[in-house]
Amino acid sequence: MPEGRFGGLFPRCCRAIGRFMPRYALKVEYHGAPFAGWQKQVDLSTVQGAIEAALDKLEPGPHTIAAAGRTDAGVHALAQVAHCDTVKDWSPFRLSEALNFHLKPQPVAIVGCAVVPDDWHARFSALERHYFFRVLMRRAPATHDRGLVWQVPRLLDADAMRQGVSYLLGKHDFTTFRSTICQAASPVKTLDSLDIVEATGRGGPEMHFHIRARSFLHNQVRSFVGTLERVGDGSWAPEDVKTALEARDRAACGPVCPPYGLYLAGVSYPEDPFG
Amino acid sequence: MPEGRFGGLFPRCCRAIGRFMPRYALKVEYHGAPFAGWQKQVDLSTVQGAIEAALDKLEPGPHTIAAAGRTDAGVHALAQVAHCDTVKDWSPFRLSEALNFHLKPQPVAIVGCAVVPDDWHARFSALERHYFFRVLMRRAPATHDRGLVWQVPRLLDADAMRQGVSYLLGKHDFTTFRSTICQAASPVKTLDSLDIVEATGRGGPEMHFHIRARSFLHNQVRSFVGTLERVGDGSWAPEDVKTALEARDRAACGPVCPPYGLYLAGVSYPEDPFG
Repeated sequence: MPEGRFGGLFPRCCRAIGRFMPRYALKVEYHGAPFAGWQKQVDLSTVQGAIEAALDKLEPGPHTIAAAGRTDAGVHALAQVAHCDTVKDWSPFRLSEALNFHLKPQPVAIVGCAVVPDDWHARFSALERHYFFRVLMRRAPATHDRGLVWQVPRLLDADAMRQGVSYLLGKHDFTTFRSTICQAASPVKTLDSLDIVEATGRGGPEMHFHIRARSFLHNQVRSFVGTLERVGDGSWAPEDVKTALEARDRAACGPVCPPYGLYLAGVSYPEDPFG
Repeated sequence: MPEGRFGGLFPRCCRAIGRFMPRYALKVEYHGAPFAGWQKQVDLSTVQGAIEAALDKLEPGPHTIAAAGRTDAGVHALAQVAHCDTVKDWSPFRLSEALNFHLKPQPVAIVGCAVVPDDWHARFSALERHYFFRVLMRRAPATHDRGLVWQVPRLLDADAMRQGVSYLLGKHDFTTFRSTICQAASPVKTLDSLDIVEATGRGGPEMHFHIRARSFLHNQVRSFVGTLERVGDGSWAPEDVKTALEARDRAACGPVCPPYGLYLAGVSYPEDPFG
């Protein structure tokens, strides 16, 4: 029988009838390859499903968790943030250890855990999402980083891409960079920043994209990177990004790049729950 | 029929009867996990076997290649160096492209290729080998870097380990740090350098070991790192490394650490063939 904060007097008390279920923020790292994305789906392996199943092994369930970003199939996370409610009053350290034990051998790890207020919500309390996209620029196939980078066979021109980015920053109608199945109410979003950093990985030269916004449209980051790659490659002029944006037409977008270079890298809240 | 330098007049001429087979140095990157090490073995998948099979697809074989370091099962390479002889006079670019094509989908890539003199030998011409060992220091299981790092659950003390290293540098009888199946003629080797660098990986704090010597005994690097980890963990005093070394007894060694954090990172020659 699970022990509650009140010594077992309210072993199954729930949020609806009391205030005895503690809420935890979870910082979650995962490799996207084996999963059909974050969101739970019948008969498919998902990250949400894996964590909820681990919770069910700790306490009678079913548990339902919410996350800041519902990543697509194949997309990785360095610091997805989710929240869960439990019956037992766990120390955050014990809860993360127990979840990691039950998550094995799946490539999902709880890398941070903190008690948060009852009204804190991983998705609705979030102020900004930070995505990271990794491109490896070389001809020889990736070995160690296979599945963790998008590989292009030649060096990209960072300055040309930065010029292309200048047209995307700020508030725009991003219909061009939005999947046709996107369910957002409006195509208007504000892109806070998109920084391009040249880096040297162990496998060779890389181009890193750091992208921040309060929220994103479906496939927006992969549409941005796929379009900017055309600019970096010289196939598009930087100004073509402006033309594409202003077209407000999905058909004007460059090729959407694959998911395996993309990482949900962080989520900002008014106060960092893990700080 | 393969084309030789002499327009097919000597389509199968070999080193024994002529000087028409060009020799190439290959810089090879691989993920060690799917292989039973570098060296060819009957009925086992090895890196040497994979590259020789790719060569056999380009030209009538069999081909035999030699490498600077015969890495163990599970050990990775960033820049193994091997050499091969071919019948056809390939441009280095075309040869590396053709090999990479036939190596797919195995995680082996030719990342450098250069013509070298007939008497150049990947193993015997080498002056120094450089190994790299990666330790991830955190409790949560690795996800993206699983199989690419050795994970320890706590932070290691770099300064204590560096003090331990001071006893290992230079020329010593390294019997303590040598596998019992090592076939080297002598246990006396000279350790040129062993640098410990604290780093921040995407998955958390890491400790990197950079180790250089003309040649190594079997399991020497993994014996060093396993022993130094005991020092970094506080289980051993730095001076215990000196005692272990002076014992010249395999039983005095710390635990040999696993292969999947180890990378053959480079090989030095009197002149860099890829430079």
